[in-house]
Amino acid sequence: MAEFDSAEHPHRRYNPLSGEWILVSPHRSKRPWQGQQEKTAAEQRPTYDPTCYLCPGNTRANGAVNPAYEGTFVFDNDFAALVADVPAGSVNIGGLLRAESESGVGRVICFSPRHDLTLPEMETTDIRRVVDVWVEEYRTLGANPDINYVQIFENKGQAMGASNPHPHGQIWAQRTVPVEPAKETVQQAAYFAEHGRSLLTDYVAIEVKEQTRVVLENESFVVVVPYWAVWPYETLVVPRRHVQDITQLTAAEKDDFADILRQLTIRYDNLFEISFPYSAGLHQRPTDGQAHESWHFHMHFYPPLLRSATVRKFMVGYEMLGNPQRDVTPEFAAERLRSLSGVHYKQATQ
Amino acid sequence: MAEFDSAEHPHRRYNPLSGEWILVSPHRSKRPWQGQQEKTAAEQRPTYDPTCYLCPGNTRANGAVNPAYEGTFVFDNDFAALVADVPAGSVNIGGLLRAESESGVGRVICFSPRHDLTLPEMETTDIRRVVDVWVEEYRTLGANPDINYVQIFENKGQAMGASNPHPHGQIWAQRTVPVEPAKETVQQAAYFAEHGRSLLTDYVAIEVKEQTRVVLENESFVVVVPYWAVWPYETLVVPRRHVQDITQLTAAEKDDFADILRQLTIRYDNLFEISFPYSAGLHQRPTDGQAHESWHFHMHFYPPLLRSATVRKFMVGYEMLGNPQRDVTPEFAAERLRSLSGVHYKQATQ
Ligand SMILES: O=P(O)(O)O[C@H]1O[C@H](CO)[C@@H](O)[C@H](O)[C@H]1O
Ligand SMILES: O=P(O)(O)O[C@H]1O[C@H](CO)[C@@H](O)[C@H](O)[C@H]1O
Repeated sequence: MAEFDSAEHPHRRYNPLSGEWILVSPHRSKRPWQGQQEKTAAEQRPTYDPTCYLCPGNTRANGAVNPAYEGTFVFDNDFAALVADVPAGSVNIGGLLRAESESGVGRVICFSPRHDLTLPEMETTDIRRVVDVWVEEYRTLGANPDINYVQIFENKGQAMGASNPHPHGQIWAQRTVPVEPAKETVQQAAYFAEHGRSLLTDYVAIEVKEQTRVVLENESFVVVVPYWAVWPYETLVVPRRHVQDITQLTAAEKDDFADILRQLTIRYDNLFEISFPYSAGLHQRPTDGQAHESWHFHMHFYPPLLRSATVRKFMVGYEMLGNPQRDVTPEFAAERLRSLSGVHYKQATQ
Repeated sequence: MAEFDSAEHPHRRYNPLSGEWILVSPHRSKRPWQGQQEKTAAEQRPTYDPTCYLCPGNTRANGAVNPAYEGTFVFDNDFAALVADVPAGSVNIGGLLRAESESGVGRVICFSPRHDLTLPEMETTDIRRVVDVWVEEYRTLGANPDINYVQIFENKGQAMGASNPHPHGQIWAQRTVPVEPAKETVQQAAYFAEHGRSLLTDYVAIEVKEQTRVVLENESFVVVVPYWAVWPYETLVVPRRHVQDITQLTAAEKDDFADILRQLTIRYDNLFEISFPYSAGLHQRPTDGQAHESWHFHMHFYPPLLRSATVRKFMVGYEMLGNPQRDVTPEFAAERLRSLSGVHYKQATQ
């Protein structure tokens, strides 16, 4: 038999951040698709939509009126999954029925007053303002002794459950550390204890040397399709310098963060020439007062599309009951993304 | 402040099978929905579709011709994610880039020759034939020394990535134990070592006593919306008797399994009066030759719909980056399902 070739043969890959495995089936990308097609949303949106509850000056569901904001705008989510005043309490029946009350806060961040924009169509200086809001919110929320973890994220596109196309993200901040960052805490601490360097410092060094999975680099940041990527065009944005959270970034690093987010999301839009759906979010050290020296702040992008604007990857049966599975290899995805223009397709065709 | 009430206040619940937590936000179910609506597929299908690659007598993509089968029909998946002949090999760069070749087999099981049926519209005796195929496949595949885990599942409906509405399920069987059953192996072994009884024996005893989350019961099986359910109408089907896998079920128990699957899927279809989408699958002991005495065979149903035939729960941003979150409580979902008729809505309106 031939030698094992990860570009051709089914294999498992290990995610050192979560400690879990995924199944990769490179040979399977030729499978015909007769299933569900995604809708592609109308591309032309007005700069202002009088019915949008996020546009400046409009009234929200709870009667509050948005200010005539010109940059970003942050407010408490009117339908937050987490609320501050929750009576403490718990359930424990035989160790099998266990519950604990949970408190926290939900915030909404409008990225721009313009209803028709998204990150890749915004100026770098405007994205930098979004980064500044993330820094400020992480700092302020994290300073609250009842908040031990701050999850900043964006759901973009109908395919990712976004109920409003106005450019915005969310923050869910809470008393306990959720499952995914808790796994990353354990894994990063173990690696740091063994090597005295952060897991992502060493990982980025390998990727920068190999280059095969690198999508973008600037002075301060590297974007890769991680070796263990689950979603077809999943990426990981990592600062070169080992910092635990975004409050530690220098001004130049924050500029570079804004720059690389713009570069990356432009490539995403250019991939299938649509406004590319994804969920993305920052993973940073818990705000529980501990140092978490091993933590290396990073950002995950999880986009669902697989082959075109209308054919997505379904994480269903086997994935839910076994573990995630992917068809195209991370190396193939990185090459595709790298080959795309840095000019947004809408600009290019004007 | 009032006392903690899990029907009202945000809280976390623990899943003893996986060892992970989920966030429950009961107060959030009033949230308005302006996002993506699911398509509802045309309900009328012909009993035979000449273009369907699963119907009897038709030719598949690879040129093979299906027999004129009258009950079930099982064959090797033409586009399997797992294949038998994979060269052994692995990658390990600094413990951070790790891969291992993986071998296995993919099988497709047609539940019925009738293109227009699904489990809830089949006779119990015909569902029993599907159960018999699961038993036989688990036994045969599991006997192969290169197969250490057999995942039997069904993706039903376009929303769950099913590319063909012909009633069918799949099997992915492989050398290693996937992540989810591996977690359940650890958790069940720990419980068994401590208590000398299976985790699910004790869990079902509590649920049968409390009744609030019980959806259905017969002589041999209990169906609950588990205390830690992630999906709005998720259910867990558990045999009362502690058996490690389906080959150990008696003939009467297999009849009861078929019966309760029919009862459950009829309630699912009746919930929103559509052919209810879900991914479902069996979790059984690994076929690695070890006894796994602690393992208690069960079946998970993961349906995506939340509020109606067209509004689903999105497991996106927070869920991908933090942990799963649900709005309606498992108790509410169980009550809804329990209240539904045991007669399929299509039969009822005839
Ligand atoms: O094998 P199918 O039905 O073509 O494919 C479906 O089920 C598989 C197993 O859950 C998934 O990996 C695919 O994403 C999904 O579309
Ligand atoms: O808060 P939104 O945007 O209304 O809701 C969206 O994001 C949330 C957080 O990821 C999810 O829980 C919801 O299922 C999704 O529809």
